[in-house]
Amino acid sequence: MNKQTTLSETKAHELATKQREISVSEFFTKNRHLLGFDNPRKALLTTVKEAIDNSLDACEEARILPILTVTLKQTREDRLHVTVRDNGPGIVKEQIPLIFGKLLYGSKFFSYRQQRGQQGIGVSAVVLYSQLTTGKSAKIISRIGKQYPAHFFELNLKSKVNEAEIVSDKEIEWDYEHGTEIQVDIEAKYMKGKQGVEEYLRQTAIANPHAEIAFIDPFGTSLSFPRATKELPLESKEIKPHPYGIELGALITMLKLTQATTLLSFLTNDFSRISLKVAKEICAQAHLSERSRPSRVARQEAEKLYDTIKQVKIIAPPTDCLSPIGEEQLQKSLHKEIVAEFYCAITRKPVVYRGNPFLIEIGLAYGGNQLGDDSITLYRFANKVPLQYQQGACAITKAVTETSWKAYGLSQSRGGLPVGPLTLVVHLASVWVPFTSEGKEAVAHYDEIIKEIKLGLQDCGRKLGSYIRKHIKAKHQKERVTLFVKYVPEVAASLHALTGEDDKKIAAYLQSYLDTHMHSLVQEGKIDGNV
Amino acid sequence: MNKQTTLSETKAHELATKQREISVSEFFTKNRHLLGFDNPRKALLTTVKEAIDNSLDACEEARILPILTVTLKQTREDRLHVTVRDNGPGIVKEQIPLIFGKLLYGSKFFSYRQQRGQQGIGVSAVVLYSQLTTGKSAKIISRIGKQYPAHFFELNLKSKVNEAEIVSDKEIEWDYEHGTEIQVDIEAKYMKGKQGVEEYLRQTAIANPHAEIAFIDPFGTSLSFPRATKELPLESKEIKPHPYGIELGALITMLKLTQATTLLSFLTNDFSRISLKVAKEICAQAHLSERSRPSRVARQEAEKLYDTIKQVKIIAPPTDCLSPIGEEQLQKSLHKEIVAEFYCAITRKPVVYRGNPFLIEIGLAYGGNQLGDDSITLYRFANKVPLQYQQGACAITKAVTETSWKAYGLSQSRGGLPVGPLTLVVHLASVWVPFTSEGKEAVAHYDEIIKEIKLGLQDCGRKLGSYIRKHIKAKHQKERVTLFVKYVPEVAASLHALTGEDDKKIAAYLQSYLDTHMHSLVQEGKIDGNV
Repeated sequence: MNKQTTLSETKAHELATKQREISVSEFFTKNRHLLGFDNPRKALLTTVKEAIDNSLDACEEARILPILTVTLKQTREDRLHVTVRDNGPGIVKEQIPLIFGKLLYGSKFFSYRQQRGQQGIGVSAVVLYSQLTTGKSAKIISRIGKQYPAHFFELNLKSKVNEAEIVSDKEIEWDYEHGTEIQVDIEAKYMKGKQGVEEYLRQTAIANPHAEIAFIDPFGTSLSFPRATKELPLESKEIKPHPYGIELGALITMLKLTQATTLLSFLTNDFSRISLKVAKEICAQAHLSERSRPSRVARQEAEKLYDTIKQVKIIAPPTDCLSPIGEEQLQKSLHKEIVAEFYCAITRKPVVYRGNPFLIEIGLAYGGNQLGDDSITLYRFANKVPLQYQQGACAITKAVTETSWKAYGLSQSRGGLPVGPLTLVVHLASVWVPFTSEGKEAVAHYDEIIKEIKLGLQDCGRKLGSYIRKHIKAKHQKERVTLFVKYVPEVAASLHALTGEDDKKIAAYLQSYLDTHMHSLVQEGKIDGNV
Repeated sequence: MNKQTTLSETKAHELATKQREISVSEFFTKNRHLLGFDNPRKALLTTVKEAIDNSLDACEEARILPILTVTLKQTREDRLHVTVRDNGPGIVKEQIPLIFGKLLYGSKFFSYRQQRGQQGIGVSAVVLYSQLTTGKSAKIISRIGKQYPAHFFELNLKSKVNEAEIVSDKEIEWDYEHGTEIQVDIEAKYMKGKQGVEEYLRQTAIANPHAEIAFIDPFGTSLSFPRATKELPLESKEIKPHPYGIELGALITMLKLTQATTLLSFLTNDFSRISLKVAKEICAQAHLSERSRPSRVARQEAEKLYDTIKQVKIIAPPTDCLSPIGEEQLQKSLHKEIVAEFYCAITRKPVVYRGNPFLIEIGLAYGGNQLGDDSITLYRFANKVPLQYQQGACAITKAVTETSWKAYGLSQSRGGLPVGPLTLVVHLASVWVPFTSEGKEAVAHYDEIIKEIKLGLQDCGRKLGSYIRKHIKAKHQKERVTLFVKYVPEVAASLHALTGEDDKKIAAYLQSYLDTHMHSLVQEGKIDGNV
């Protein structure tokens, strides 16, 4: 027995004693920057954002026009008391500790439809962060209807086990008939600007024109974002996974867990767009019996099934799982928030990526009181949620910088954002948004998504380009006319000398000709009357 | 009872039925890009990387000179069979299913010391990915010593519950006395280049000069990276958390879970650098009894304790928890891998951030056969692991681009990497590296880290600058001398005409003067003899 062997054996045993399970809450406590709690400023934004995301999702699901209130109170130099209240459907009592006091718990992770939340981490991470930085429990109020009491909870999240600890639990009087309120004390810093809460709410109002949002900042100043429409957005319907989007391992798991008793019923029931005919075709091509028990399908057979599915022609998934902002609504929102000359919005048709339907919306507002000598303002949205951080890492930014804006009348240096008096909105609506981190700050670089955004930018870009050309042409024409007007007296004098005609009469004639000509150009819409 | 209320109530109940716990493995299956499995090419790199990280950590811990073998075999157009074998201490039988078949399990997450792994996710994520993409079980062999059998496991990871499923388990013959081997079948694509496996192994060899690495690519080509030194790196010692790095919530949890029975013993035993004197001072200033039971300390008292700790002067944490590459070793590695003219490496003193000690090492190789008209080559390392993706998002890149390289003789456009024939190595060694994602591809932008990297770059930059200046000066001097040599016959002829002295004699004298002058400059080290 040599020395090395002894050492390795001892070490192996020693290492074994140190091995331990790590709870997901311990993991995220140590890595809280992954959830968007990097620093006090961002932590505040993330807190408000996670609460509002949940509120808007719940209201949309219950077909309620949202009324949201965000209140910030400074309690210490580095601390804020944050309250977010909604008039949503409320949460049944038993679910409150689970939703707010447990990471990776929720209804959205497993459903195939467009929603703001998708991870089951968000709002419970807020509770974790408040506890970590101030040691204070989160306070939750929720009520599900007029004839029900409002429940008040004080909660902690036990990070060793990722479970809620209920500190107190009672019924209280509450002035909302239904809704939910969360109050947390967090280490945070309030700042205005591009990455602040106010800007977040402003952008949220743009993407959710049906929401009414009130905001009270730490100085007591109130700000309100009234709704632009009373029309609720389209309801996104839950769909089943599309067979093209499934991976082999996931297919094997589905086969094991399905309630279907035959392969045929498994294929037709557990996927979208597999008709009986297509299911029979798949079984035949894969040389599998239609009546095989799904749970008994072996790995090799599952692989054959998987390969066959990829080869069989199956129609694209239904797209009513998506809920776009809408061209008209987006344009209305832009009108309300930005003073510009030219507005334009488009909603592209849904397309599919790995079985996940998604669609792109583009909106833009050009000119007006926007500054023209700096980079454009880019608003990025994913499932109607503004993305304010990590612009450089986002697929949306990549698509914008890789589009040639010179063709549309803006200047642009290689690899950069275009320059000009433009606010550009890009919205990705999807059953599943591939974010670059749990903090949901940027969209990962998926080719299919980037390509589709570029097509949308081109659609809108062309409209912008034709406006700018007209606008610039008109400006030049006007300038030429103005220049000519200056020479009218001289020209008149020369013509008088040549013809003997009265020079005032000539001048008046020239002037009237110019006026008529300009007017008709405006009438024909060739130039803008206000130029 | 109005209609809205009924609807909200129904919705609340309906939503409640959909709520579910999400296992961490389900979460990462859906979000596998967060772990570095975005696409087949990156998935291959991540697979090799996670296995090698574990191997190197285990060898270092057991003080074994690592011998690592990576073998790739193409099994289908889009699939590879990956084998990674080490001569580490091995893993005891009971731990094998846990380490490879469960996410968030390990020994490193809770320990305060520099290690490659830190999350307990890595290698089990590889098992999850292999299962997801090919449905095949992972094969593990491990042996902890000559007199022990080698254990062979076939494993799956049950993603619904994040637990290992043992498919088979037996004892086998194995030619290594101790070590571990993992074999997986994955959907993957082998490619050469900057982000490939070969480059990863090359960079790993640079940062780990004590490791011997062999690589067999899918074409059967062997490549070997012999070790540059037989000296093991410094062993990193485990330390306790430093009080300055603790957050209030973590302090409260520690108070609850400590085995200490008094506040005084809690403070002195559970933290590093709190002496009895300092502990007494803290208790006194916080108006807390030294003999209070830690578990009975209330939140408000904990907060007082927390605030007091921040005000009391406590010495910096011990830094033997770090294990740098070392100046000499890093320079040796660079010599071995890069043909250059000038080499330089420095290891900075450890500093502390949020109670976490870290240190920066910089190495560079200038000139030689490196191209001079493109951006420099930047190698980023965190705890000796190469970072090959997300260069743009990394704090290391930020520090490099924000350093003014013009002062050191390189050209650089604003905000870009410098341009020149340079390979630059930046190594961050830390008890805890704040990565931007679980995939561990880039370091988050923490000011303290960026500042310290910049200081290191300046140290090395000055040395580089003085070399380049000398080099360029010498080049110019040489050019002037060469030019003068051309005119020697003409000058000699003129002097001959003026003085009547033999022109050949004059020419010989001038030539010998120039030679002597050049020689003495070389001797004095003012210019480089090889120029």
